[in-house]
Amino acid sequence: MAVYTHLGAEDLARLISHYDVGELVSAKGIAEGVSNSNWLVETTGKDGAGARFILTLYERRIDYADLPYFLGLLDHLADKGCPVPRTIHDREGAAFRMEHGKAAALIEFLPGVSPGRPTATQARSIGAVLAQMHLAASDYPLTRANAMDFAASTAILELCGAERLATIDPGLPEMLAHARAAAALDLSGLPQSQTHTDLFPDNVLMRGNAVTGLIDFYFACTGPTLLDLAVTHAAWCFDADNRYRADCGAALVEGYESVRPLEPAERALFADVAKGACLRFVASRAEDWLDTPDDALVTRKDPMQFVKRWRFYDEAGDGLLA
Amino acid sequence: MAVYTHLGAEDLARLISHYDVGELVSAKGIAEGVSNSNWLVETTGKDGAGARFILTLYERRIDYADLPYFLGLLDHLADKGCPVPRTIHDREGAAFRMEHGKAAALIEFLPGVSPGRPTATQARSIGAVLAQMHLAASDYPLTRANAMDFAASTAILELCGAERLATIDPGLPEMLAHARAAAALDLSGLPQSQTHTDLFPDNVLMRGNAVTGLIDFYFACTGPTLLDLAVTHAAWCFDADNRYRADCGAALVEGYESVRPLEPAERALFADVAKGACLRFVASRAEDWLDTPDDALVTRKDPMQFVKRWRFYDEAGDGLLA
Repeated sequence: MAVYTHLGAEDLARLISHYDVGELVSAKGIAEGVSNSNWLVETTGKDGAGARFILTLYERRIDYADLPYFLGLLDHLADKGCPVPRTIHDREGAAFRMEHGKAAALIEFLPGVSPGRPTATQARSIGAVLAQMHLAASDYPLTRANAMDFAASTAILELCGAERLATIDPGLPEMLAHARAAAALDLSGLPQSQTHTDLFPDNVLMRGNAVTGLIDFYFACTGPTLLDLAVTHAAWCFDADNRYRADCGAALVEGYESVRPLEPAERALFADVAKGACLRFVASRAEDWLDTPDDALVTRKDPMQFVKRWRFYDEAGDGLLA
Repeated sequence: MAVYTHLGAEDLARLISHYDVGELVSAKGIAEGVSNSNWLVETTGKDGAGARFILTLYERRIDYADLPYFLGLLDHLADKGCPVPRTIHDREGAAFRMEHGKAAALIEFLPGVSPGRPTATQARSIGAVLAQMHLAASDYPLTRANAMDFAASTAILELCGAERLATIDPGLPEMLAHARAAAALDLSGLPQSQTHTDLFPDNVLMRGNAVTGLIDFYFACTGPTLLDLAVTHAAWCFDADNRYRADCGAALVEGYESVRPLEPAERALFADVAKGACLRFVASRAEDWLDTPDDALVTRKDPMQFVKRWRFYDEAGDGLLA
């Protein structure tokens, strides 16, 4: 949540000059994105009427070989009318450039704010947009493997080890066996497309009940669309105390199915996939927790939040799509 | 350089509703300001044509009793045509409100970017604007003592202690005696006004050679205008290796004097005040250096930068305004 690389006004102006967007008017480093440096950039625009962009400088966490997949997906989805920011190509047609040894991309700025406490009506909207995205992405020509699939979560939890997991919370070590069970699921028969897989409210811009932007596609990958719905369900439909919000859950699925009805195989696997989705966040948060000193300035996210959500799906998940 | 307080979309929308600025359109936490949380906020505007603001939530470093001074000064200067952001008052006329137990203010957004490597022409511009500000502020009715005056710098260096200062650099302990000499200067006969006292390029917005905004007035105080000129000189007129840039220095003073000629007493004291100004940054940086663990994620600023600049003024300062 920071700007990791300093770019002075002259660096920014030079970078912007490679794009047909007019001249630099202002630039503010923004506190968004954990793996990139981002600036909200204003230019005079092609026509002098002004234009705004997000300039992203990709720090080390992202494999640059994946950038054509991520940035091309934005263009593909925007072309089909999905509310995602378009990639601005430079004068040579490139979607990203190397600057100071790092990849940089200029991306359309979209209005909207991320809901802090989503309502059921907002959950319905995001469900519909998610399904729209899955349909629109189905003919996207590139693919990317899910680096955080259920096998990867299991491997992370195994590397943490039961003993160290227990130092965070005594309820954590048993999640290892559950992660192994999720990794053993056969999802190959489920409908596939390109998926966001990290669609927390923070990664959605809204104005009122309308979705104005899905952002931060840097976990996007090819895989079962059911996983994306399950991640979104787990991310949107619980309150701050991790209690299930039935109205949001029902609205999210209803919104999704208003655009793309679920298949019987998806309904049958929903609870298991939602449990696997929870364990993906349990794993990454537990790893971060153990890697971050207690006195670090960075806020650690509590892995137990998603253990609690896992327990909900374990107990009540089968009834959700019945 | 971060957003310290999380405000969700609903919090932001509610806060904005207390102002006559239309409805919230977007909000991005920005990576500016070390003692506050800041958002770049867009609204539909009073007239529906859109408007932008900086929303600041004041964290613990600022004494809230000083806010009327800081925010009133912005309005006073803006009224007189100085390029500073105006404070937006809420529907009850208040310049700041309490939100989540913290003071919040909505401030005009100004275009421009901070120069990374200022040119002499840019230094001339900032000199002229600084003098304009000093003249415009001279009838501002509030006052605020300089909490970082030369006596305060000396006290900080004394608290650090010669031994610990030597662990940073062997050239640092001798600065203690020089700080005492600066604290003994009699500046009472110099022209006074409201002063910024922290006008680094980071705190100036420019478009090309024109100053579009002076920002971050949270060290502003009542005192000798010469100190403000000296701080600005020390902050703008050295390269990254702390070598004096004579062209910038001459242009800055020339720009200043094009609006407000210096008095003989100011010329006579310039070198000594510039040395004192350097020691103010030596002191705060040395203190931060000793307080910040070696492995902290925060970047520490090297106090020796301003020891080198002090040495320049000690050797050559008397000739600068001759």
